[in-house]
Amino acid sequence: MAELAGNVLVGQSGGPTAVVNASVAGIIAEALNHDCVEEVYGALNGVLGILQEDLIDLASESQQQIRALKHTPGAALGSCRYKLKKQADYDRVLEVFKAHNIRYFFYIGGNDSQDTATKISAHAVAQGYELRVIGVPKTVDNDLPATDHCPGFGSTAKFIATTVRELALDNEAMGQGDLVSIVEVMGRSAGWIAASASLAKRRDQPHDPPHLIYLPEIPFSQDKCLEDIRRVLKREKFCQIVVSEGLTDSDGNYVSADPALDAFGHAQLGGAGEFIKNLVEANLPGVKARLSVPGLMQRSAAHSASKVDADEAYLVGQAAVKAAINGETDKLVTLVRGDNDTYSCETGLAPLADVANNVKKLPREWINEDGVSMNFQFVRYAQPLIQGEVAVPHDSGVPTFARLDKSRVDKVLPAYVA
Amino acid sequence: MAELAGNVLVGQSGGPTAVVNASVAGIIAEALNHDCVEEVYGALNGVLGILQEDLIDLASESQQQIRALKHTPGAALGSCRYKLKKQADYDRVLEVFKAHNIRYFFYIGGNDSQDTATKISAHAVAQGYELRVIGVPKTVDNDLPATDHCPGFGSTAKFIATTVRELALDNEAMGQGDLVSIVEVMGRSAGWIAASASLAKRRDQPHDPPHLIYLPEIPFSQDKCLEDIRRVLKREKFCQIVVSEGLTDSDGNYVSADPALDAFGHAQLGGAGEFIKNLVEANLPGVKARLSVPGLMQRSAAHSASKVDADEAYLVGQAAVKAAINGETDKLVTLVRGDNDTYSCETGLAPLADVANNVKKLPREWINEDGVSMNFQFVRYAQPLIQGEVAVPHDSGVPTFARLDKSRVDKVLPAYVA
Repeated sequence: MAELAGNVLVGQSGGPTAVVNASVAGIIAEALNHDCVEEVYGALNGVLGILQEDLIDLASESQQQIRALKHTPGAALGSCRYKLKKQADYDRVLEVFKAHNIRYFFYIGGNDSQDTATKISAHAVAQGYELRVIGVPKTVDNDLPATDHCPGFGSTAKFIATTVRELALDNEAMGQGDLVSIVEVMGRSAGWIAASASLAKRRDQPHDPPHLIYLPEIPFSQDKCLEDIRRVLKREKFCQIVVSEGLTDSDGNYVSADPALDAFGHAQLGGAGEFIKNLVEANLPGVKARLSVPGLMQRSAAHSASKVDADEAYLVGQAAVKAAINGETDKLVTLVRGDNDTYSCETGLAPLADVANNVKKLPREWINEDGVSMNFQFVRYAQPLIQGEVAVPHDSGVPTFARLDKSRVDKVLPAYVA
Repeated sequence: MAELAGNVLVGQSGGPTAVVNASVAGIIAEALNHDCVEEVYGALNGVLGILQEDLIDLASESQQQIRALKHTPGAALGSCRYKLKKQADYDRVLEVFKAHNIRYFFYIGGNDSQDTATKISAHAVAQGYELRVIGVPKTVDNDLPATDHCPGFGSTAKFIATTVRELALDNEAMGQGDLVSIVEVMGRSAGWIAASASLAKRRDQPHDPPHLIYLPEIPFSQDKCLEDIRRVLKREKFCQIVVSEGLTDSDGNYVSADPALDAFGHAQLGGAGEFIKNLVEANLPGVKARLSVPGLMQRSAAHSASKVDADEAYLVGQAAVKAAINGETDKLVTLVRGDNDTYSCETGLAPLADVANNVKKLPREWINEDGVSMNFQFVRYAQPLIQGEVAVPHDSGVPTFARLDKSRVDKVLPAYVA
């Protein structure tokens, strides 16, 4: 493989996670190890920054700040949910790449973002521009196919399991067989985050909270839900419920307390927790319902990040650079779990096209017969991913995070016209 | 002061906090230092446990578990919101105290709970039963008068400031002048918790998020709120709002999206965040609103507890026992701040009657003219209370907490008839 000399460009896309900046740090550190890499640039707000030629010089950032990225939530380069639509957009991306001699493009994101990455790759091939494109996985939802798990998920799982265990002690103190405590968590299409609440249970204590987990994989029934709650309240002082925002009924419509409908007349995402709260209050006299909706908190809780997750997020960044330097392109870095009982993980590669726009759901056989709890197969899968704590420096009592200088790369092209 | 020999009883009441069990640990440890104390009992679920003679033997718990109480959220003895109503209830309490030779009663709780404590004290005096009653302050709301601050507040303040700083990085990555991010926090009558979000700002960076704080102390106006948001969105990529659940309009009615009304036809507590979200979506075209409602999470987040707060919660427990042994009764332990620039704090005593059912609000002069931000006086007050982190042991990736054996004290009285 002939060495390809040129510049590196990194972009972040989609919802941030507690550890997505660790992947940026891994990419920068590894890129600077290779002589064929001349400059290391960042695109502000993903493809939006490419279109607008808003690039920053990452090599000029202090090592201190790049190191601090490892524990900094959000997306330090800015993010976007923009999808390239027109042929002219792809032409513009390539024009910017040529103008800045970008030969290595790393795009950190989920399914939608990797769809963008593979299309940029195809366009470069079609135009005969030598470019290596490697996708770096990122999503708290853990729903990317081809990879054992996704960086970002472990930290959200740890935060939710921690929160549920803490909440349970509060609920236990206040409940007298008359308290339903509901936590609504993220997970648009798959129940990985909701399922991770089951990691709050102690080993061999299946009756530990959370008592009921409602997943997008299992169609929701109001009658069964009320039955479930009555059964738990007979046995326990309180009933702790974790519900995924992506809960749907048997027709596939979102379960939501919000009367707002989308363009197709379907209920919009969000409000599943409120729906269950209302259901309880309307049908179980004398029972109090309490709702917590951590919302965006659960993907930015760097103070409760998983060390395994943060380390793997850094690792996939490094691996992306190594793969590109070795001549790979149009691939996603994957995490491949070892076969041993003791958890181990290394990186692999999968075609970007296998990942783009596909969704990995919870296997049905990891969910118990009752439909509201997880079995040992899920625990065996998820528990290793939440191990270890990340030491976050504090100043004046709150965590301190990286702030990049964002020194702009000079624009050389005419302004982008949307 | 003649030495009073007898048994100690501890109870917890009202909503738990991340550090309320540290006060229990402080009481037990100190009580066992004194020869005049024979047994150390706990009442399960506060006064409910006293009425029902549900007492446990705290001295028989392992030292390991009592030590672990210092970082365990919830209320390890169970809690209640029960108010003694009838004369017969007070008679029953005294009957139980006599039956178990309770001479020292420590009640850990907020305003309502201390009202119960002072009434029990008065009843004992009236009946000529020698009893020393000391209240131990506890409330995340920080709204008890007579004490500089309340154990529990510092940890919730730290969690909210941490969360807001983390969320801000997520919001900054996603916003393009079109994002409003709302966090609804606790605070029924006073805005201490909402105000504490301002600790997320860096020193001398008044434009740092949170950009707008809506407090119960300042009557809410929809028009001003929309103006505030428009002003911030002109300047920033996003607008971060923290709103207290106890927000009221100029008539004193709760601001709430929930159409449920109380018996007087007023909107019920909760839903202020949803109200602002709806306001934004209805009035600011193209602007997205995101809502996080940590709910009970914010009072049980032991994984993010303040070391100063946990230490002071232990200290007030110890101080309560020392005061009672010294002959004090019908008093609340208070926290008294030193006069120096460097934060220091010792305990004091105040009459329970001064505390019961009173509420301390944010001083108006600590709130800026704009009504939506805090000035240096608040920061000087609150910042010392969130300092330091509590090391919480983890097992399998989640924090581990104390579990008491709860060895029951034999009942000697006829069953309680409600």
